[in-house]
Amino acid sequence: MGSKASAPGKAILFGEHAVVYGKPAIALAIDKRATITIKESHRDYTRIKSDDLDLEAILSPETGLKLKKGEMGILNYILKALEFYHDSTPINIKLKISIPIGAGLGSSAAVTVATIAALDNYHKRKSTLPSIARRAHRVELEVQGAASPLDTSISTHGGLIYLDKEKIEQIKGDLKDSLVIGYTRSEETAKMVKLVKERMERHPQIMNLIMDAIAHITRKARKALKSDDKECLGELMNINQGLLDAIGVNSKSLSEMIYTSREAGALGSKITGAGGGGSIIAYSHPDRTGQILESLTARGYNAMKANPSTRGVLIQ
Amino acid sequence: MGSKASAPGKAILFGEHAVVYGKPAIALAIDKRATITIKESHRDYTRIKSDDLDLEAILSPETGLKLKKGEMGILNYILKALEFYHDSTPINIKLKISIPIGAGLGSSAAVTVATIAALDNYHKRKSTLPSIARRAHRVELEVQGAASPLDTSISTHGGLIYLDKEKIEQIKGDLKDSLVIGYTRSEETAKMVKLVKERMERHPQIMNLIMDAIAHITRKARKALKSDDKECLGELMNINQGLLDAIGVNSKSLSEMIYTSREAGALGSKITGAGGGGSIIAYSHPDRTGQILESLTARGYNAMKANPSTRGVLIQ
Repeated sequence: MGSKASAPGKAILFGEHAVVYGKPAIALAIDKRATITIKESHRDYTRIKSDDLDLEAILSPETGLKLKKGEMGILNYILKALEFYHDSTPINIKLKISIPIGAGLGSSAAVTVATIAALDNYHKRKSTLPSIARRAHRVELEVQGAASPLDTSISTHGGLIYLDKEKIEQIKGDLKDSLVIGYTRSEETAKMVKLVKERMERHPQIMNLIMDAIAHITRKARKALKSDDKECLGELMNINQGLLDAIGVNSKSLSEMIYTSREAGALGSKITGAGGGGSIIAYSHPDRTGQILESLTARGYNAMKANPSTRGVLIQ
Repeated sequence: MGSKASAPGKAILFGEHAVVYGKPAIALAIDKRATITIKESHRDYTRIKSDDLDLEAILSPETGLKLKKGEMGILNYILKALEFYHDSTPINIKLKISIPIGAGLGSSAAVTVATIAALDNYHKRKSTLPSIARRAHRVELEVQGAASPLDTSISTHGGLIYLDKEKIEQIKGDLKDSLVIGYTRSEETAKMVKLVKERMERHPQIMNLIMDAIAHITRKARKALKSDDKECLGELMNINQGLLDAIGVNSKSLSEMIYTSREAGALGSKITGAGGGGSIIAYSHPDRTGQILESLTARGYNAMKANPSTRGVLIQ
């Protein structure tokens, strides 16, 4: 008896941070996934293992959790999902993951969604996508204290989505072979959200104008995606980037990645996610992504091509 | 018979580019000056010489201009001032200058103002500051085709000024020993103004919100200067910088200079002037300027401490 499920990571194209202030955002699922495999265990404990993360932990009803290798991080999400959606039967859990961890690319949401879907399947529970998304959000809330439903929703449903006041809508856009992501492992979402909030309190008039400008950008980007106006889309990313710098979530290395991408031919490039570290996303004609990738790695940054993924969570 | 006059360069603290769209700006004269010395000549031609710029030119009524060393650049302003405010008597003109050229620091305005003042004095013409500023602006207009009256006005009057719809007002602020300027020699004002205009035409709603935000920043900065709220002033510079990035006048090296300054302890840092190359200005507590200067020069950038100058044009 076994079960296997996978779910994608995400990248925010427009509107991060502004979404906290009621403005719209655009995000997409990317073709980097977390895959959870569950097998029956003949031992008297549950084992959780990930070669990709160099992680191994043992969970026993008697002795509790024992971390044998690696860091807690992503493990917290698996443990919370087990607590909520599994009984105490010993199982073997394997995690494969190609989403960079802690880079604002939705790794924890993907792991959570995949774990819940694999557990549902293991227990032969009938489930729906909205139910998986809702429960994954609950797990993220429990682990993090606060969490947007955006990450778990995209990871569950896949595709390119437009989020406006918690209404999530699939939209059109051709981003195939057009994206490069540069990343570090130091995104600090909570800290960045707090910094922006404090700047908002000190300078409400200025910050509200900036948030309104971001909202306009996101709405216009939706149209540019629909009409495949690549130049416009790139320019809107660049303007959004300046506004992210203005609200205080840019950093020296993010800025270097952003300008490196543009010099290598990106039509647009910006922070994706909370910033302050984390990741950037560059958008270009398909024939320039190789050059952008090379320029970023030549400067010592982690980078990868990314494709949109229409597939959300999959039972395999 | 001789005459000597000097005039300061300038740095824009807030509102560059936005000023083109009717928003206020704050600028100051800095303690880097252009000094023009005029002496009678016993030859039959006028000689213009600057050791600082490695420049030498000869102007004769018969053979016209002969450039013996260096580039036309700043020479155009001296020649136009001579054409307007000198007869054809041969003279020797020497230019000493400590303002970096072509870096958006008002070198051409300072040279023009100093030349006109030295010529007035040489010809024993009574003159007033407003008259010098007005005529220097006329020279800049003739040479450049378009020019804001800001540079020539600050260079003439000195001090810290607030410009709102061509009304120029001296304001209060303690910036002593608090400024570092990093610069390159590649500011392209006309090109940058054009780029911003084009982005404004493509995205008027977004760009108008950004320009309004810059206007709010400038007005709030005026208050922060008055109350000497250093933290606030620095933060407003940083927000303004993001908005300059958003309107498209930032560059990789400007961004590196800006983040290098902040890491070295600047309370705020931003592009000063038109951007796209050009200069940055960093503002800090006096005990950090040394560290900022060092960090910039360690990365191969030109940098200098700058102090506000209450003295505008001076007849010496």
